[in-house]
Amino acid sequence: MTTEPGVSGRRSAADFSTARLEAFSDGVFAIAITLLVLDLRVPEPDALHGESLAHALAGQWPAYFAYLVSFLVIGIIWINHHALCGLARRVDRRTLFANLFLLLAVSVIPFPTRLLATYLTGRDSDAHTAAAVYAATMVVMGIAFSLLLLSFTRDARALRTPVAPADLRAALGRFGVGGVCYLATLALAYVSPVAMLATHAVLAVYYCFDQLAPLRRSPSKGGSRPTPPA
Amino acid sequence: MTTEPGVSGRRSAADFSTARLEAFSDGVFAIAITLLVLDLRVPEPDALHGESLAHALAGQWPAYFAYLVSFLVIGIIWINHHALCGLARRVDRRTLFANLFLLLAVSVIPFPTRLLATYLTGRDSDAHTAAAVYAATMVVMGIAFSLLLLSFTRDARALRTPVAPADLRAALGRFGVGGVCYLATLALAYVSPVAMLATHAVLAVYYCFDQLAPLRRSPSKGGSRPTPPA
Amino acid sequence: MTTEPGVSGRRSAADFSTARLEAFSDGVFAIAITLLVLDLRVPEPDALHGESLAHALAGQWPAYFAYLVSFLVIGIIWINHHALCGLARRVDRRTLFANLFLLLAVSVIPFPTRLLATYLTGRDSDAHTAAAVYAATMVVMGIAFSLLLLSFTRDARALRTPVAPADLRAALGRFGVGGVCYLATLALAYVSPVAMLATHAVLAVYYCFDQLAPLRRSPSKGGSRPTPPA
Amino acid sequence: MTTEPGVSGRRSAADFSTARLEAFSDGVFAIAITLLVLDLRVPEPDALHGESLAHALAGQWPAYFAYLVSFLVIGIIWINHHALCGLARRVDRRTLFANLFLLLAVSVIPFPTRLLATYLTGRDSDAHTAAAVYAATMVVMGIAFSLLLLSFTRDARALRTPVAPADLRAALGRFGVGGVCYLATLALAYVSPVAMLATHAVLAVYYCFDQLAPLRRSPSKGGSRPTPPA
Repeated sequence: MTTEPGVSGRRSAADFSTARLEAFSDGVFAIAITLLVLDLRVPEPDALHGESLAHALAGQWPAYFAYLVSFLVIGIIWINHHALCGLARRVDRRTLFANLFLLLAVSVIPFPTRLLATYLTGRDSDAHTAAAVYAATMVVMGIAFSLLLLSFTRDARALRTPVAPADLRAALGRFGVGGVCYLATLALAYVSPVAMLATHAVLAVYYCFDQLAPLRRSPSKGGSRPTPPA
Repeated sequence: MTTEPGVSGRRSAADFSTARLEAFSDGVFAIAITLLVLDLRVPEPDALHGESLAHALAGQWPAYFAYLVSFLVIGIIWINHHALCGLARRVDRRTLFANLFLLLAVSVIPFPTRLLATYLTGRDSDAHTAAAVYAATMVVMGIAFSLLLLSFTRDARALRTPVAPADLRAALGRFGVGGVCYLATLALAYVSPVAMLATHAVLAVYYCFDQLAPLRRSPSKGGSRPTPPA
Repeated sequence: MTTEPGVSGRRSAADFSTARLEAFSDGVFAIAITLLVLDLRVPEPDALHGESLAHALAGQWPAYFAYLVSFLVIGIIWINHHALCGLARRVDRRTLFANLFLLLAVSVIPFPTRLLATYLTGRDSDAHTAAAVYAATMVVMGIAFSLLLLSFTRDARALRTPVAPADLRAALGRFGVGGVCYLATLALAYVSPVAMLATHAVLAVYYCFDQLAPLRRSPSKGGSRPTPPA
Repeated sequence: MTTEPGVSGRRSAADFSTARLEAFSDGVFAIAITLLVLDLRVPEPDALHGESLAHALAGQWPAYFAYLVSFLVIGIIWINHHALCGLARRVDRRTLFANLFLLLAVSVIPFPTRLLATYLTGRDSDAHTAAAVYAATMVVMGIAFSLLLLSFTRDARALRTPVAPADLRAALGRFGVGGVCYLATLALAYVSPVAMLATHAVLAVYYCFDQLAPLRRSPSKGGSRPTPPA
């Protein structure tokens, strides 16, 4: 897992294989996405006061909605992270820290999710606060992902296949569109917290489609992709 | 972990190795199955009111029962997921999303488990609600697994060994039998929540036996299995 | 991760690589061992009633003691599980289920740990109950490990190197000694819960020493260990 | 994952590959770092007493501060652990136990973090106690990391590349500087808990810079690094 089969060149002493970066990141993504379930609260039997369980569960719809959106968001980030890591064959310390910053943003997501689930149907001003914290977390996460993207593509020699500057600009542009939308949801949080959450579901679907494709399409002029060892 | 040794053909830029899909999925399975233990509650000493701890623990039998069944269910899904991933050597984005849907169904299981543990011995109507939520989760999980199975076998070229249509139908049929039973437990939830839970234990044992075997038996006419690199 | 480099023979369609078994098991071990920390409770500021925090923390010594012993136990099981998996190059479904049984016993450990931490200094009869549940969990875990050991060594052809029957008996004997001690702690639980816990710490140290060594020493007559692919 | 491709020499029967050591450690690091989020508490709506949510959240700044520092600390330990594991190609049982000791120190971090978040702005004497527990955990963690470093470098034959004694001394010296600072924060805990926490943030940044570099720079006299299999 620490050796990289098929890499014939010298490996700088300060570099790391992407394999363990991925293993650690996968762990954090998997835990963050699974911890979300702890915030689907089971109503206390004593707190029902004669209300039916079905009714009490239905009243928790903000928790299910926030759960679904956050699950989708983390899942999509994971898929895009996966695609990003596929670009490079080794990473330096700077990339490790950019990655750590992204993991910070991802692993904190259960907190704003819980906050929104609790306050979405509460007092207006509190719902706005909770929604703004949620949207701000997503903005930070978007920034972290962009930094990681830049960090991965900065050192051309570390890439599996060279990325043309135009392709990098195209990918950054696509992410930029998403980033502007993320910022817009921060304003939307003060108008309609529910619309803010729904917009994040839509944005996740936007990122479903392969926005990193330009980076991988780069070296399409004739099989320059290094063939794996036979 | 991102390179696939032994794959000699070109790899489509949009494809992913199954290795990281498995690593992420294993993480989610492992966390979901382990988080179940958080719902085995230790009785508060102050809440015993002179009752012995042994008696209080015995009164929690629905929690142990639900824990065991859910543990078994997640464990068996993991084993079958493992077998499914073994069919393909690479996956596309569509399969990643089908997989994410399955992971959603799996990682939510601690919630209905907790719900059932809390309400199984409560008011009849609430026990029925809790049992129906549990059974419905399993139905969704069954649908997600079938979608993933179809997604994995849809692209014949991505399979390690070709699957004959008859074999695919046989495997789907076997899963269909289980799926109908899953639906039946949804009705059973309104009759006897305990019987519903017991049926899921039996169904898990049914899926223990290798229901995906037809898919792997397919190319048995003479060692067409690609030999690993020597 | 699903292909096994260096395995030149045919692979039975129903077999699994040990790699993913290990990945999933590592996940469960890692989560179970880390979830233990959730039961180190921070005293509520309101519940101190003028008592100093230092004093309140000192009063929680059973929680620290139980935490340390359970951490050690899970860590040692992991190391021995690691050694066990190293014996085989592929596993069948039966071994997967034996492994699932072991994972059940391991992932439930946070529950008796929490129970013991709560009741160790409580009413005598409740402390005995909590200690007995803890010891019983360890007995089940010991049985599960022995079943897995048998399951791994049953199919001689799946082993990396053949194990002589005498060596298998030697290893089982060593585990048997530990198993008898585990049973003895079940009785000890009704005499002194603290001594029961201390004995498990000692037993963990016993298993630290390589009790599976006979199995690996087996084929020492001249480098029959298959060399990895060059 | 258990075989080490490219290692041509004999492997002692009692040795383990670093791969699974890393997989298990990555799991524990990833879980410990992600569990921290569970201690970012959402204020109960009933407990606001007319106060705005924004105000209540702002009052929780010690929790965010402690979260950030602990996240950074665990992230940096992971990166350095990664670098450490890269030195060796196999480990013995003693190293496994040194590693288990480090994992104990890492996985317990959420407890002092929660303690500090709860008491940082409380009574002075309790804040000092909480800060001292936090600092002591870091001292133990530093000791554990140094033991692991010694354990990894003790057996020269297990290293990928030989480490010159002077280089080992240099690396130990750098870690020693950090260790003395860790001890100093233990005293600082009784002066200013906030300054203690800030110092740990600074120390984490110190360890960001590659303090293990001397160990890897060792064999720089002419490409003695074993080339991976081609």
